[in-house]
Amino acid sequence: MKLFAAPLNLPLSEPFVTARGPRTEAHNVAVRVEHEGVVGVGEAAPIARFSQTQQGALEALHGVVLEAPADLAALERQLDALAPRFVGQEAALCALDIALHDWLGRARAAPLWRLFGLQPTRVRTSMTVSLQSPSSAAARAAQLGERFALLKVKLGGSQDEALIEAVRARCPEAGLRADANEGWTNPNHALAMMAALAAARFELVEQPLPAGQWHFARRLEHRAPLPMFADEDLAGALDAEKLSCLAGCYHGVNVKLDKVGGLLPARRWIAAARAQQLSVMVGCMASSSLAIAAAAQIAPLCDVVDLDGSLLLARDPFEGLEIEGDEIVLADRPGHGVTAVLADAVEIR
Amino acid sequence: MKLFAAPLNLPLSEPFVTARGPRTEAHNVAVRVEHEGVVGVGEAAPIARFSQTQQGALEALHGVVLEAPADLAALERQLDALAPRFVGQEAALCALDIALHDWLGRARAAPLWRLFGLQPTRVRTSMTVSLQSPSSAAARAAQLGERFALLKVKLGGSQDEALIEAVRARCPEAGLRADANEGWTNPNHALAMMAALAAARFELVEQPLPAGQWHFARRLEHRAPLPMFADEDLAGALDAEKLSCLAGCYHGVNVKLDKVGGLLPARRWIAAARAQQLSVMVGCMASSSLAIAAAAQIAPLCDVVDLDGSLLLARDPFEGLEIEGDEIVLADRPGHGVTAVLADAVEIR
Repeated sequence: MKLFAAPLNLPLSEPFVTARGPRTEAHNVAVRVEHEGVVGVGEAAPIARFSQTQQGALEALHGVVLEAPADLAALERQLDALAPRFVGQEAALCALDIALHDWLGRARAAPLWRLFGLQPTRVRTSMTVSLQSPSSAAARAAQLGERFALLKVKLGGSQDEALIEAVRARCPEAGLRADANEGWTNPNHALAMMAALAAARFELVEQPLPAGQWHFARRLEHRAPLPMFADEDLAGALDAEKLSCLAGCYHGVNVKLDKVGGLLPARRWIAAARAQQLSVMVGCMASSSLAIAAAAQIAPLCDVVDLDGSLLLARDPFEGLEIEGDEIVLADRPGHGVTAVLADAVEIR
Repeated sequence: MKLFAAPLNLPLSEPFVTARGPRTEAHNVAVRVEHEGVVGVGEAAPIARFSQTQQGALEALHGVVLEAPADLAALERQLDALAPRFVGQEAALCALDIALHDWLGRARAAPLWRLFGLQPTRVRTSMTVSLQSPSSAAARAAQLGERFALLKVKLGGSQDEALIEAVRARCPEAGLRADANEGWTNPNHALAMMAALAAARFELVEQPLPAGQWHFARRLEHRAPLPMFADEDLAGALDAEKLSCLAGCYHGVNVKLDKVGGLLPARRWIAAARAQQLSVMVGCMASSSLAIAAAAQIAPLCDVVDLDGSLLLARDPFEGLEIEGDEIVLADRPGHGVTAVLADAVEIR
């Protein structure tokens, strides 16, 4: 099986701002696998928060030897054998995992959702309101609210309480979620912000505290007036000790393919989180419709869907993902359903 | 969706003897679900080791209200909602879980292995040699060895070392596994027995120490001359703390549908165990071909297959499971492929 990889730089339609600062371009990686005339493609976003770079991800893919998988079990065995060399490079593994899944689906002429035992359906995604001033965030929310019933509001700035109130005042009927991106470093401040969120009928908050502060997170969860979801606190392959910490500190988890290494580890995290009575969100990074279409394949397994990554782009170099209004359609196309357009791919072995 | 359940008493062809004593009959439960003319059937063995009884399992099924699932995701949501009322009654949940999976497969005209993304295949099962005297065990092993390439030898008696040597002497080419069933209460004795097993080229040993002795098991695992698999130490739904203990104490785990509550929790345990680099065995209790056919659906996900339950029976009241020599065939039949013959089922709601 041939393997190609390439950088995939994606300008955003406007700066994407979180508690960590602004971004104007996503620097992702794309992978293509080929065997017997069948092509599979994958994409993932190296995550600076986890010390990953585009260059590092591409280097991690060098010299990887692949076999065409006969079924999901064979694919899992191959990915399990590859996983140790990708520890810390989960984005590179994710792009490879998606490409191999796509290849299997296309070789079997089956959508990935069908290989996973699911039905064709539609899932409603939330849309992100970047971190900005309260009045500007409220105006943006009102604008996005015309298309999207669910909005995810970025917090972690200096005017969060006013921002929360302004957005709710302008969007009285919207389904609102919040994401602090580790921005509340003081647990008492986090608790006050969560009280404001609950008062404004927000449904959940992601990563209120910096990751790794299990002691504070556990105490916060007991007093939380709305569900707390882990995001930055969940990365890498499914790990029993981390799962145990998460189950004790959060109501739910945000599983992103890029963070965990692809569809296989994401399905494992989802299954394990469910067994721990954790709610499950499937999220994404800023990425093309290729990565979004892959994540959408497992969205029916999740309670909360946040797959707006390709809606943030100035232009999308892939095609095939169907989005109608604010709903992603799980269509009856083989693999993840997105067409390979990797003209500048570099053969890496 | 209608739900029926009935006791399923299965006389064994000869006494089945482990370190816990002999048994001559399995007292299982069978479940049938019906909706729109489609029937699904399931079976499980209540496990006395976990304080379960046939009567308790049947009572646990009283009053359960079911909906026909549209796909695996809907089935998972329903089983997750039901799971809390079956804590400690995993066998009852297992019979229900299998029946619902079977119904879904039949309603979709798809084998369960296909719903799980797997290919049709064959899996080689081991066959059990009951605990008995060394000479008698060796004779039985030689007899079974004519059909079965893989034998699982029950240990935990007073002559284990002689038994190990006698079986290997009579079966020089057989693939041999051992199961102590918690029979070695002294860690030093367990270590001596494991040395004898390694010298006799046994491939693995199940549950050498009593369950729950994590401290001893962890120390034993560091010095073990052959892989140690957890059996009695793994029961109930996937639990992060238990998984963490297992990963620190064992090389592998024996996942039985009856212990964990069915196909859904078994798939979760398998996925989580793989993520922890644990080897995975799928095992069984003494049961009809119905329970065996269900477990066989996930056998391709496992490294070791021990599904001899229906081969221990005096007669098998179900039909449809194909076993050729020592290989179970994953055939292209809807659901788990075994035909419902539950004439004496009792409607329970």
